[in-house]
Amino acid sequence: MDHLADVSNLRSSQSQTQISHLALDIGGSLIKLVYFCRYDDSCRDDGDELRSQNDSLCSKSDNSQPVLEGRLHFAKFETSKINDCLDFLRSMKLWLGVNSGSHDGTAPPSDKIFMKATGGGAYKFADLFKEKLGVSLDKEDEMECLVTGANFLLKAVHQEAFTYLDGQKEFVQIDPNDLYPYLLVNIGSGVSMIKVDGDGKFERVSGTSLGGGTFWGLGRLLTKCKNFDELLELSHQGNNRIVDMLVGDIYGGTDYAKIGLSSTTIASSFGKAISDSKELEDYQPEDVSRSLLRMISNNIGQISYLNALRFGLKRIFFAGFFIRGHAYTMDTISVAVNFWSKGEAKAMFLRHEGFLGALGAFMSYEKQCLDGLMVHKMQQKFPISASSAGDNIYCSLNSNSDENGSIECTVYGT
Amino acid sequence: MDHLADVSNLRSSQSQTQISHLALDIGGSLIKLVYFCRYDDSCRDDGDELRSQNDSLCSKSDNSQPVLEGRLHFAKFETSKINDCLDFLRSMKLWLGVNSGSHDGTAPPSDKIFMKATGGGAYKFADLFKEKLGVSLDKEDEMECLVTGANFLLKAVHQEAFTYLDGQKEFVQIDPNDLYPYLLVNIGSGVSMIKVDGDGKFERVSGTSLGGGTFWGLGRLLTKCKNFDELLELSHQGNNRIVDMLVGDIYGGTDYAKIGLSSTTIASSFGKAISDSKELEDYQPEDVSRSLLRMISNNIGQISYLNALRFGLKRIFFAGFFIRGHAYTMDTISVAVNFWSKGEAKAMFLRHEGFLGALGAFMSYEKQCLDGLMVHKMQQKFPISASSAGDNIYCSLNSNSDENGSIECTVYGT
Repeated sequence: MDHLADVSNLRSSQSQTQISHLALDIGGSLIKLVYFCRYDDSCRDDGDELRSQNDSLCSKSDNSQPVLEGRLHFAKFETSKINDCLDFLRSMKLWLGVNSGSHDGTAPPSDKIFMKATGGGAYKFADLFKEKLGVSLDKEDEMECLVTGANFLLKAVHQEAFTYLDGQKEFVQIDPNDLYPYLLVNIGSGVSMIKVDGDGKFERVSGTSLGGGTFWGLGRLLTKCKNFDELLELSHQGNNRIVDMLVGDIYGGTDYAKIGLSSTTIASSFGKAISDSKELEDYQPEDVSRSLLRMISNNIGQISYLNALRFGLKRIFFAGFFIRGHAYTMDTISVAVNFWSKGEAKAMFLRHEGFLGALGAFMSYEKQCLDGLMVHKMQQKFPISASSAGDNIYCSLNSNSDENGSIECTVYGT
Repeated sequence: MDHLADVSNLRSSQSQTQISHLALDIGGSLIKLVYFCRYDDSCRDDGDELRSQNDSLCSKSDNSQPVLEGRLHFAKFETSKINDCLDFLRSMKLWLGVNSGSHDGTAPPSDKIFMKATGGGAYKFADLFKEKLGVSLDKEDEMECLVTGANFLLKAVHQEAFTYLDGQKEFVQIDPNDLYPYLLVNIGSGVSMIKVDGDGKFERVSGTSLGGGTFWGLGRLLTKCKNFDELLELSHQGNNRIVDMLVGDIYGGTDYAKIGLSSTTIASSFGKAISDSKELEDYQPEDVSRSLLRMISNNIGQISYLNALRFGLKRIFFAGFFIRGHAYTMDTISVAVNFWSKGEAKAMFLRHEGFLGALGAFMSYEKQCLDGLMVHKMQQKFPISASSAGDNIYCSLNSNSDENGSIECTVYGT
């Protein structure tokens, strides 16, 4: 297609990559991007593992469609800084690599250029994208995208799901034929809980407004931290017992064994802050951050478990950008699920946790077959070590550090 | 009994009431007191309704035990100001009116004077009560006391339970023979959820650390309010939409009807506070307080409903000192239960919501029959208007304003 041919001509000199197909998930706090990058030399900058068996950039698939080998890349921006995202898209000319409403393979009129998008921002910022980039956002349902993204990751990507307990990450081998039903808990600004019964078969059964936006919003007000990651980082060094009222604080150091509450169980989150003798500035931001993180993680774990129980679901997958591969967050959620389920249910996490919606929007190109794109088979060709996976996925696209966490894939029909 | 005879001699000149039998519930934030006050002239200071049919202060019951007519009074202190409570008890000589370990009706040695107490503070402050007042705290299990108190109120007290929706309070007539099972949600510093199947038949099935202590603790840090009631009062004038991220904020003003989320649904509590452009001091304390109250009330409503659902319980009674008859709190809890249950379950509230534990501890005198006290039959002889009941029960005992909310009762065997 002509407009795709244009991409190589207009290729960003900065990136030197051949990018096509991009999808967005514009949430309340973050914009998540997934885009497909064809292999060329500059794409192979992160090790031998990426030199796939098939070195040709374009070959023929079984059904004689053109094949592109490449990788899916992930990026994020803060929604409040949407202009940074627009600048990035503009500088990368990414939107010229995406799709048009044309079904016949001819070049589309420029006003028909569109981009798959999901999340509330696909509605809220539709005019802005049109005005600034001349691109129409083709809106996909948020829950559907989350589910499509989760199903894809769980079925197609090796070492995607893992448990986390006592500081130990353990990958779980998911049998694609024995995946359903499960509970998907997506923790963005708010939290959605979705019962997934199959491809495209799902129901949003619950949710809570205490999510990532609550952690970051309350955290900002309480600690004056300047960004989410800094706040998360702070919690590492914190001690929630300074701020939380424990069972032992009420019972004078002893537990309340009769009902299974140990002296260290949190009786009341922030309950110690009722003390008249201390003001906000007398508390360490580290302790406040840790208490907040624990309050929100524990609450999400509990409500998730109650919903899993309600529908008899043994598997709960937690995703969303709140988690960020953060040990204490995952540990708290895992402990909560384990505690409330008396060991019956297990919390699992996803390596590409933050990009379910964007991935689902990306997959929807296939669904509509508007330009014949077929995401047929994706697999990671490069193993990512357990310890580094969590961090590397959160590349800052501004620094083009899209080395790890990206997924090698084969795309038909471009 | 001699030590009771002493009470009339030592009667506080301030109160001019004849007080006997007192029980305490010492929680993480508040100390709740229930005490029995025999009728005398000074007790009848709140209207004709209190002049009961039986004007004799002492008569004979059916089983020939001495009968005392009087009222149960309620009071509270902040746990952090426990010395105020001790001063009050000392000034009122209340503990001399309570009970001893003596079973034979003779005066007990002074070191055997004891007082029924529940809550963690019964353990934590046992030594303090011994040292300052020479009184032993006779500890009763917290959950058992809550259940005993709730069962008593629901069975014996007219117009105790009510629903609250759209600003309308509606009393619910409970059939004592059709009371069980129900879910009791006690919102103190933390929250306990108890499935009640009968007298003394119960199980604490869940709870959450996001309770009254969280509202007050976080509220103090965020608003610099000096007390809980002031913070609650502030929330009246607040607008949570300034602080919370609504579905409409994410979706650009529209709703997400497909999954039943209106544009005004809270997507993320405190989610708007992630904005870089505003600091804590730029927010009105009123808005912060309202957002906080809604977050916590809604969360409690949701978790309660999920637990009611789990055990097939249609009735949920909310109690504890967090509520304080506060319209917005009850409304939010009611709406949450209604929303999540799709109208299947109903939230109910109790007029004496804060005193379940203390009442249960009081009732335990009967159980032990240590001095033959039999709380046989209690009924309110004075109707309290729906509009004023919520406030009047929270009398400050320091000001002796024990006019309303107290419960007329008949006590045998003192």
